[in-house]
Amino acid sequence: MEDLLKQIEQEAKAIRDKILKQQKPTMRFPLRSLSNVKFDAKVGYFEMGRKTKERTLAVATVKTFAQSLKMIAEAKKLIESDDIATKREAYYIAKGWQEAVRFSEQTESDTVLDDIEALFKVNRERLGFVPEEKGGEVAGNLMVIDRDNDTAEDLEIDCTRFGSGAYSIPISVEHLRFQSDARFVLAIETAGMFQRLVKHNFWRQSQCILVSMGGVPTRATRRFIYRLSKDLDIPVYAFVDCDPYGICNIYRTLKVGSGNAAHINKDFCVPRARFLGVTPDDIDHYQLPTHKLAEVDIKRIDDALKNDPFVRHYKEWQNALLKLKKMGVRAEQQAFATHNLNHVITNYLPEKLAQAGAFLP
Amino acid sequence: MEDLLKQIEQEAKAIRDKILKQQKPTMRFPLRSLSNVKFDAKVGYFEMGRKTKERTLAVATVKTFAQSLKMIAEAKKLIESDDIATKREAYYIAKGWQEAVRFSEQTESDTVLDDIEALFKVNRERLGFVPEEKGGEVAGNLMVIDRDNDTAEDLEIDCTRFGSGAYSIPISVEHLRFQSDARFVLAIETAGMFQRLVKHNFWRQSQCILVSMGGVPTRATRRFIYRLSKDLDIPVYAFVDCDPYGICNIYRTLKVGSGNAAHINKDFCVPRARFLGVTPDDIDHYQLPTHKLAEVDIKRIDDALKNDPFVRHYKEWQNALLKLKKMGVRAEQQAFATHNLNHVITNYLPEKLAQAGAFLP
Repeated sequence: MEDLLKQIEQEAKAIRDKILKQQKPTMRFPLRSLSNVKFDAKVGYFEMGRKTKERTLAVATVKTFAQSLKMIAEAKKLIESDDIATKREAYYIAKGWQEAVRFSEQTESDTVLDDIEALFKVNRERLGFVPEEKGGEVAGNLMVIDRDNDTAEDLEIDCTRFGSGAYSIPISVEHLRFQSDARFVLAIETAGMFQRLVKHNFWRQSQCILVSMGGVPTRATRRFIYRLSKDLDIPVYAFVDCDPYGICNIYRTLKVGSGNAAHINKDFCVPRARFLGVTPDDIDHYQLPTHKLAEVDIKRIDDALKNDPFVRHYKEWQNALLKLKKMGVRAEQQAFATHNLNHVITNYLPEKLAQAGAFLP
Repeated sequence: MEDLLKQIEQEAKAIRDKILKQQKPTMRFPLRSLSNVKFDAKVGYFEMGRKTKERTLAVATVKTFAQSLKMIAEAKKLIESDDIATKREAYYIAKGWQEAVRFSEQTESDTVLDDIEALFKVNRERLGFVPEEKGGEVAGNLMVIDRDNDTAEDLEIDCTRFGSGAYSIPISVEHLRFQSDARFVLAIETAGMFQRLVKHNFWRQSQCILVSMGGVPTRATRRFIYRLSKDLDIPVYAFVDCDPYGICNIYRTLKVGSGNAAHINKDFCVPRARFLGVTPDDIDHYQLPTHKLAEVDIKRIDDALKNDPFVRHYKEWQNALLKLKKMGVRAEQQAFATHNLNHVITNYLPEKLAQAGAFLP
């Protein structure tokens, strides 16, 4: 936090100094686009390239320039008061500014927040700006240590003691600490499957931490899983549907991130994530009921094979996606219910976990 | 649970007896539509009328009839084994049935589940069938008592000790018990506002339970709030946006339910819910930034004034909606941030709570 405040002061001072010397101040942001992204398996996530864009104070940019500075000042206030503001609240804060620097739409203030995030090369949660929605629930072998905001007392949250309920991940997870004897994190696509595994205490028999992603994981959920994997030094296994969305969107985002937010991938991606399933081979092996691939699914496979640096790096993923395309079907993680409601607990997961070394990368 | 099993056996026996006497068996369901709903403020929620539809075994109905019986048998198994199945899983269970009684789409199995729910006049969660998604988080003066499914040990979940996190409501809440000294439940529309109130331990200063609804509350969230209100004998205050969606959809559903699921309203509606705000008067009084009403907003107001039995019952709501229409604007619960990020905590909520008797009904 101290570092960040210092960084903000330096940036502001540099701009002020330029102005006092009657020079034009500039802010330099990394270019946020797929064309400025690279994937190196040793690093493990999409990295930002070296291309940057510069915003120099001029007639055309004066409003955005001023808005950026004002928003940086708000970030400083948030950090100093240990408070948070959602992107929507940030927009309303700006409604109280002078007419000349107000935003007319939230998309404008969101862009400024993205720029600031990229400028300081930290996730904006550390600047106090948090997303509106979060999702993400947790159960299993994990003690989360938070603190009471009034008394500063440590609060120990034991995720083995939620019964049928769960721990709901906060919007910002920077301050949390963890204790655990878990062997891995199981990141689950649907809330329904999570609920089944919680209901039957699957975490107990397999000594793990269950996390419900609820589709493509939110920033808070990604950051939380990242921190679990790093702090506890354990792998993350993704349990998602066997379809292009589960593979190329949910799993890919969890593991290596996305192109247009590459400046934050370092803090959000989980390079140790591995694909537990469902795989195209599982569809055959477990004789799962399937659905036909839709046009959009096939298009997504073709796109991934052609443009996704992650898929292009791994022959295994190219083969899996090509196999899926040839089979012409997809299967959901709930499909095991056709054999038996708890087949997933008694058969599928134990059988897969016994050969974790063979998971798709 | 015993009662329900008995009811299932009786229903099945009646059908079996008819068949053995070589008569045509029937199942009788309440008609599920707005035309079969009435609102009596003394009851407090939309009630099912007396219209019913009958399904008699015949050539045209034999498949649905058989599917209903098979699904009732699955419900019996779920209750006996204390397990759950999501609607999606129920669909996959049926994939394992004989060809003749399989569903081709999930919409078909969903309809059968709705029928069974109406047939037994209980929410389908008690039959073991749970929704896919749930939402709903809780923080504040509440001890939830759940149990460990393996050891049957009681688990005390203290919602004052989650720090910045929260308790995530399980998909089925029937088995939970509660202890609390809270004076009321504050049901909040957005996850962002919930997070702010949690961050600043608002529940402590106001002695309440905070529940995040995340838009229109899910069945699990509605049932949870209902049970809090009933078991703890405390009122529920809804804190939502001042727009037709917040009023006529979120709040109305929370309090009196919806037309097409009136058979479950008894177990899901919260007649003691009152509208804390944001009200059209608040927009003036707190000088909130607003957005123009869209076409769809105006249409929703007109619809509610004309067709909604709840709005038609309360002159106060008609006046409020007409005022909003005349003002031509709407305001969000985050709009208070324009004054000060925590204005809602230091000013708005305390000022409103001081005059809870004046809340809209």
